[in-house]
Amino acid sequence: MAPVKGEDKEEIPDCKYEYLDHTADVQLHAWGDTLAEAFEQCAMAMFGYMTEIDSVEMLETQEIEAEGHDMLSLLFHFLDEFLFLFCAEPFFIARKVKILEFNREEFKIRAQGFGEEFQLGKHPQGSEVKAITYSNMQYHEHEGKAEVFVIIDI
Amino acid sequence: MAPVKGEDKEEIPDCKYEYLDHTADVQLHAWGDTLAEAFEQCAMAMFGYMTEIDSVEMLETQEIEAEGHDMLSLLFHFLDEFLFLFCAEPFFIARKVKILEFNREEFKIRAQGFGEEFQLGKHPQGSEVKAITYSNMQYHEHEGKAEVFVIIDI
Repeated sequence: MAPVKGEDKEEIPDCKYEYLDHTADVQLHAWGDTLAEAFEQCAMAMFGYMTEIDSVEMLETQEIEAEGHDMLSLLFHFLDEFLFLFCAEPFFIARKVKILEFNREEFKIRAQGFGEEFQLGKHPQGSEVKAITYSNMQYHEHEGKAEVFVIIDI
Repeated sequence: MAPVKGEDKEEIPDCKYEYLDHTADVQLHAWGDTLAEAFEQCAMAMFGYMTEIDSVEMLETQEIEAEGHDMLSLLFHFLDEFLFLFCAEPFFIARKVKILEFNREEFKIRAQGFGEEFQLGKHPQGSEVKAITYSNMQYHEHEGKAEVFVIIDI
């Protein structure tokens, strides 16, 4: 280590660089006593990545319906419906998610979110969730316990 | 959209989720009149991702030497040497990088960084740079211009 001498100290080079193509993902792991609870928790985990979840009040509810051809695609569409509620009108962010009907034979879900409209200022901005992915998506059930793993692009 | 009624409003579910395996990368694009300048700029781009680069004063210098078996591995090791200066003693962050010797036949570089020890409080924490990667690494030279592309894991 050497101290910097006079002439080199002054000249800071022009900036000739830029940052391109930022990509990122995070894996959500959620669990519960039932698969329905694990799904609910997974949706809350997703909302928890978007903002400081404790800042969200339960002022309104929103309902979604999702359908799949198997359990994983059902999970995908279930999360995607909630993501869509956030990304466009009504820009809804849920503090709590509750599954009202979980049809395991036809892979259909009807669920309710409790929360409010996202407002900058009230809700600290977390990471933008760009997409749900099928990458390494998993669900497991045994002995009265269930868990799911979902990777989301942020 | 419906207002939330009494009983549902109170109960916030326990948190049964966690965030796993966060991965992210960013592509650095740097350029200059010479390949040496593009390399220097690429190292500065890397340091610029670690902190607010304007907060770094040029109080000290550090020298590194790097060697490769071709131009890309030389670029890799050149960046990696600077990353190592930051990750361990002396926790050095460079505001400016200058290549003193650039041996294109033997793929060797001797370079100097102008900067100071990283200090929380003085230097806003940027992203942790976890690794340089060879993924889609490129360098191009033509007509007195040079540019490089490097993806780093953050």
